[in-house]
Amino acid sequence: MTSAPFDFAPLLPAGLPAPAARWTGLTKYSFVGGNNDPEQVPVDGLIDAASAVLRREGKALATYGLAHGPQGYRPLREFLSAKLKRDAAIDCTADDILMVSGSLQALDLVNATLLARGDTVIIERDSYQGSLNRLNRLGVNMVGIPLDQDGMRMDALAAALADLDRRGITPKYIYTIPTVQNPTGTIMLQARRAELLRLSEAYGVPIFEDDCYADLIWDGKRPPAIYAMSSNGSVIHIGSFSKSIAPALRVGFIVAPWEMLSRMLALKTDAGSGALEQMVLAEYCVPHFTTHVPKLTRGLRAKLDTLMEALNEQFGTSAEFEAPKGGIFLWVKLPDNVDTLKLYPAALAAGVAINPGPEWSTDKSHAGSRLRLCFASPSHQQIREGVAVLADVCRREFGVPERIANVERRART
Amino acid sequence: MTSAPFDFAPLLPAGLPAPAARWTGLTKYSFVGGNNDPEQVPVDGLIDAASAVLRREGKALATYGLAHGPQGYRPLREFLSAKLKRDAAIDCTADDILMVSGSLQALDLVNATLLARGDTVIIERDSYQGSLNRLNRLGVNMVGIPLDQDGMRMDALAAALADLDRRGITPKYIYTIPTVQNPTGTIMLQARRAELLRLSEAYGVPIFEDDCYADLIWDGKRPPAIYAMSSNGSVIHIGSFSKSIAPALRVGFIVAPWEMLSRMLALKTDAGSGALEQMVLAEYCVPHFTTHVPKLTRGLRAKLDTLMEALNEQFGTSAEFEAPKGGIFLWVKLPDNVDTLKLYPAALAAGVAINPGPEWSTDKSHAGSRLRLCFASPSHQQIREGVAVLADVCRREFGVPERIANVERRART
Repeated sequence: MTSAPFDFAPLLPAGLPAPAARWTGLTKYSFVGGNNDPEQVPVDGLIDAASAVLRREGKALATYGLAHGPQGYRPLREFLSAKLKRDAAIDCTADDILMVSGSLQALDLVNATLLARGDTVIIERDSYQGSLNRLNRLGVNMVGIPLDQDGMRMDALAAALADLDRRGITPKYIYTIPTVQNPTGTIMLQARRAELLRLSEAYGVPIFEDDCYADLIWDGKRPPAIYAMSSNGSVIHIGSFSKSIAPALRVGFIVAPWEMLSRMLALKTDAGSGALEQMVLAEYCVPHFTTHVPKLTRGLRAKLDTLMEALNEQFGTSAEFEAPKGGIFLWVKLPDNVDTLKLYPAALAAGVAINPGPEWSTDKSHAGSRLRLCFASPSHQQIREGVAVLADVCRREFGVPERIANVERRART
Repeated sequence: MTSAPFDFAPLLPAGLPAPAARWTGLTKYSFVGGNNDPEQVPVDGLIDAASAVLRREGKALATYGLAHGPQGYRPLREFLSAKLKRDAAIDCTADDILMVSGSLQALDLVNATLLARGDTVIIERDSYQGSLNRLNRLGVNMVGIPLDQDGMRMDALAAALADLDRRGITPKYIYTIPTVQNPTGTIMLQARRAELLRLSEAYGVPIFEDDCYADLIWDGKRPPAIYAMSSNGSVIHIGSFSKSIAPALRVGFIVAPWEMLSRMLALKTDAGSGALEQMVLAEYCVPHFTTHVPKLTRGLRAKLDTLMEALNEQFGTSAEFEAPKGGIFLWVKLPDNVDTLKLYPAALAAGVAINPGPEWSTDKSHAGSRLRLCFASPSHQQIREGVAVLADVCRREFGVPERIANVERRART
């Protein structure tokens, strides 16, 4: 470059998000991101799958979507159809499934199909940051519904729907992560799922069911999906292979009535999601999924135990939490005087990355002293060390936990 | 389902595209889509690459983006940095490259970063349908610049820029496919590239350089990219592995100043593009790209010859075209009375898929009797048979080519 650098700034439209910062690598003790356990990636199985499927069908890579059409690699959709029937009681065929580039693309497609600026949606009060951020970006109003240990509270949902109805507002959807809720780790009771469907029908509001953690339940017993219990097709169901196999593979899926799938397909102008990842997943999952997942969840459960033990050791009664029934994260309440938005940069400076609660909630004050800790990716040793560093930082910044907590040991599982 | 089906229609926002139709499979003689030659997919090489890279780095799939950050798998960006230097004289590092899910995601990210409804862009009069469709969807005004055998005409561009300037309009970018232009197959002369940069600087309009076919030049001699010739960083350059390796792998890339990359990263909320495809590509391409591509282009060149020979045989002087210097498509002019938007459904009914010209042009009347024929995917025999069927349909519908054409043979290369 010899001239003055070209200035793009005058050309940028209004409303762009702030530019990204340069990537500076992962934090030493990382309790953030939906990353999985590197030791649990089924590397040998994926190698065998890649070899077999490429040998048999590799030439098809010359054609967009492997000539299986825009809904994705058909054997993977057929695997999912059988799996969803077996695990979640969902009765659907490969034609009802759209493969997408991770459940994040599913969120984008569902939102693009249903939402306009100024719309209202109902969402669990504590929810996935990526969903909250998307809705904020779209200028959509969120009504947060509190959860308890059995998932979204139906009394609160009924009250919210009645209130919106009185104000003449029809929400565009009720978004829920019913099975291993993010970040609370709760599983919605089956009776509540039935009540949710009743309310959905009564008010004419569809349900957006995000089941992307549902494979990771400790006892392996997944309740029927809300999609499966619907009698009128009012549910859009999404899922992912990120949690059950590997997140860097960007493979998720949408199950929905054709009325909605056909709208989403019209907006999915990417000429198909990555075919090699879909091929390798199908080839691996058909024979191995049902043995891989229980092995994975045993390992995750052991890491959760280590995390809870470390929190009890380091934080004592200052850290409150309910042991989740599955998943990869723990939702922790610290004393009220701890502001996790301030704890976050202090911890990061000490090499510990956490998710501050307010970023995972529609209610910033409720979540102000809460944080989310992901436990799948760090090793047992990193979990123990990271929690110790976090406790030191928290003590320095907020005076809790008190020193005495170090010698307390409470088994809370 | 026992209740009346839920009706989503009242919830849909205004302005959605029409719903997609059900996929019904590929046409018998398909001359559409950027598909490649199935016999040229380097299956054995991809199998070896997948095994080697998974064996070495498979565990990293447990972390989003393989812990290489949001710009993509670093070895692939390093391969690209070296390749772009060697082939297109582009001086950039891995930090200047953003891996994306095919060049279609690149189009979306560049557009989202620069365009708002009502904006104006400059584009080659005949251009890629996917780019035209996106701009239409975004409500952006397009000013089409005619091309000749040496690419976009700079006299016409200068006149258009001066005219817009007089009207107080600053276009957001000048979009060009300079190297194997889609659909004309032309390569922009180096002197024109220099003139384009001069005009860009004079009017303060950045250049959006789409080089996704640039690897497929018969003589292997690619001119310097416009990005490489820029002295002020006003160029956004995009490319893809879809044409050089396989389109079903959704892997493309963007090279741009950090001012723009950081804006695009903020809009790329998909947690990274597919990692396995990036890993396998890097592992395969580092040792094999430079031997694979000449072999591929020799095969493509042979198919082009078959296509041109078949057109000469079947259409005689009714089909006019210039032999492209590379690529996978031929831009054909039929007699003025042929309306390719009407030829399209008639041909499809006979099992032949073509791209009608008006879908590939800002000037529907100029392109009304033109069509695009892709030749990489069909076999030599399918090309010959498909062109014969197309000629029969065209004769039936429009009276041309006349019968006598069948016995004419003209070598036009």
